[in-house]
Amino acid sequence: MNLIDLEIPGKLAQIRKNSPLIHNITNLVVMDFNANALLAMGASPVMAHALEEVEEMCSLASALVLNIGTLSESWIKSMVLAAEKAASLKKPIIFDPVGSGATTFRTQTAKELSSKIPISVIRGNASEILSLRTPGAHSKGVDSVHSVEDASGIAKDLALELNTTIAITGKVDLITDGKRVLKVKNGNGMLPMITGSGCTVTTLIGAFLTVDPDPLTAAASALSFFGLAGEMAAEKAAAPGSFKVALLDAIYDLSLNGQSGNYKIFAE
Amino acid sequence: MNLIDLEIPGKLAQIRKNSPLIHNITNLVVMDFNANALLAMGASPVMAHALEEVEEMCSLASALVLNIGTLSESWIKSMVLAAEKAASLKKPIIFDPVGSGATTFRTQTAKELSSKIPISVIRGNASEILSLRTPGAHSKGVDSVHSVEDASGIAKDLALELNTTIAITGKVDLITDGKRVLKVKNGNGMLPMITGSGCTVTTLIGAFLTVDPDPLTAAASALSFFGLAGEMAAEKAAAPGSFKVALLDAIYDLSLNGQSGNYKIFAE
Amino acid sequence: MNLIDLEIPGKLAQIRKNSPLIHNITNLVVMDFNANALLAMGASPVMAHALEEVEEMCSLASALVLNIGTLSESWIKSMVLAAEKAASLKKPIIFDPVGSGATTFRTQTAKELSSKIPISVIRGNASEILSLRTPGAHSKGVDSVHSVEDASGIAKDLALELNTTIAITGKVDLITDGKRVLKVKNGNGMLPMITGSGCTVTTLIGAFLTVDPDPLTAAASALSFFGLAGEMAAEKAAAPGSFKVALLDAIYDLSLNGQSGNYKIFAE
Repeated sequence: MNLIDLEIPGKLAQIRKNSPLIHNITNLVVMDFNANALLAMGASPVMAHALEEVEEMCSLASALVLNIGTLSESWIKSMVLAAEKAASLKKPIIFDPVGSGATTFRTQTAKELSSKIPISVIRGNASEILSLRTPGAHSKGVDSVHSVEDASGIAKDLALELNTTIAITGKVDLITDGKRVLKVKNGNGMLPMITGSGCTVTTLIGAFLTVDPDPLTAAASALSFFGLAGEMAAEKAAAPGSFKVALLDAIYDLSLNGQSGNYKIFAE
Repeated sequence: MNLIDLEIPGKLAQIRKNSPLIHNITNLVVMDFNANALLAMGASPVMAHALEEVEEMCSLASALVLNIGTLSESWIKSMVLAAEKAASLKKPIIFDPVGSGATTFRTQTAKELSSKIPISVIRGNASEILSLRTPGAHSKGVDSVHSVEDASGIAKDLALELNTTIAITGKVDLITDGKRVLKVKNGNGMLPMITGSGCTVTTLIGAFLTVDPDPLTAAASALSFFGLAGEMAAEKAAAPGSFKVALLDAIYDLSLNGQSGNYKIFAE
Repeated sequence: MNLIDLEIPGKLAQIRKNSPLIHNITNLVVMDFNANALLAMGASPVMAHALEEVEEMCSLASALVLNIGTLSESWIKSMVLAAEKAASLKKPIIFDPVGSGATTFRTQTAKELSSKIPISVIRGNASEILSLRTPGAHSKGVDSVHSVEDASGIAKDLALELNTTIAITGKVDLITDGKRVLKVKNGNGMLPMITGSGCTVTTLIGAFLTVDPDPLTAAASALSFFGLAGEMAAEKAAAPGSFKVALLDAIYDLSLNGQSGNYKIFAE
């Protein structure tokens, strides 16, 4: 494994300069946190789920983020409509199959969306990614019961099959487009102690995709950036309330004052 | 009134060990806060309201929390369906009748749910509890206009009638199953200054019920634990923004490093 | 321009004393933040959107706040129903046309609501206000692409036409009822770095309207109060995570210990 440099500070500077609009159709739990994370990074968040406006919002946006964390039938319809529009405009779509594997409704929805829609990056934990291909793979609620290693083989196959990039987050993150594999070793044990940290990095992938056309490196950049912010936050805060505050601060500081030395991205 | 020891540190250790899945069908305001409180305590939160999946999610979960803080017709249907499933699986159901007494819709929904469903614990402020039995008892929005003492007699009757446990929160909390009465004297005046503190302790009752089969002592344990966390937070923060952050930190610290001396639970 | 004194400390003391119920039908992103801001200020928030209860909730409330930040067809119906009830009871209605100008659905909804309903104060950024009158005026998502100056002429005309007061927020805020103009020079560059700061000041206008019957001075008071809280927060926090926490603390501190020297409100 070789350490590689994805020039994250340069990408961050470009995101701050462009302030890309990121259109989120996401879950009810993380909306506030994700909007704040995008703002802290210099992007411009919008949350819009009405069937009447998702296509027009997609036209304005630079990326579309879909997240099924608190899905319902009517929101899925909006996701599909928005995704079709984004696809027709060649805008990147990022998908977070929250809780896929936990219930049939989530698993089926996640499978349908990921097979119907041209998705740039699917980001999930190991159980969620496994559930997209393996009948009977289960999640416990929204938490993983599998390791990243368990899912890496399936992820490669699935990436090829769906012509997408898959990012599995865990202790070490794995990103693959089926041919190439990157691993990210940034992060901190406090990240899973706050709700929506996975959803947050998913929407940050959206921001990186607006300045990096390669889904593999864009996803790895976002994961490394978010993980490093987590490391910085953990230096300031030892419990989850203050950690979440420090995490937003670190996202802001890191995107404002690009540092280059601490991103731990490795290529096989 | 005698101080009693409900062995809260031991229960907290068990919750952290088991990481029970707590299924919440709750209001739009507190989702993020409640998920973070459960995580900080060592439990695993999931928010899921779709009719298509609530039964399956109930099967995976160790407790079901229902909260009508931002109710609507379709969410009530999901609550009923989830509750029927949870009841059939003998899983504890915890109910928070937010704003019952304020509008007819809330009062009727709260009365229907609490009479139809076998609920382990109903947690509300004095006005909300009174409204479940007394025609014409009013709330002002989601805040109480009655004292805990006002509602204690009704609470006993109602607990017997509904075969449930009722927890009335206020300056001193009162918990009763109709025969026994416990009082909790933990807490801090800053708790009502943040939104969703009542809803949060409701969901924490859910977590305690997974390790304590007696609803009376499980509810008292949760109220005392949450109140003590509030006391600890108030030592660090004198205004509500930082208090909320410190409260999550205290929930985490307290569940990690069980302390036994400061829980103030009294039996009549 | 002359500095004027709107006696904000006295209004704040009255709000704390009355604890007015503010009924919000608002967006999914800011509910928690706005409820906490109202509580910190001493008001009593309630979020209720069900068609079955909005009229009754309006009867209990002292002001109604409508915000289309994550609008959908069914919520608009509730907004209209609530507004008709509030109007019949002569209760102040405050409207935040979030994202008007970005999509046709938002623009049409904002135009319809603002023409149908007797609104006391419309609060928006320059692009949102322009979109209410100028065909083809666009927003980028929920962020403004125009300056307050761009919109001031239109705002005057629109205020007269709709018989309302319009507050345009930006670097310097402008408030006009078509005849009079006030400007507010409080605020801080960190405010746009957190999500929902505009929505928050909108709901605080609701609280001020319960103690000040003149929409022009009520709106200016809220904007100045919130801007000053932002200034105080920026002295304590240099990044958005901690800034948001400090902002809630400042709202609390400022409403508790009225200061009179730093409000920068000017009359033409």
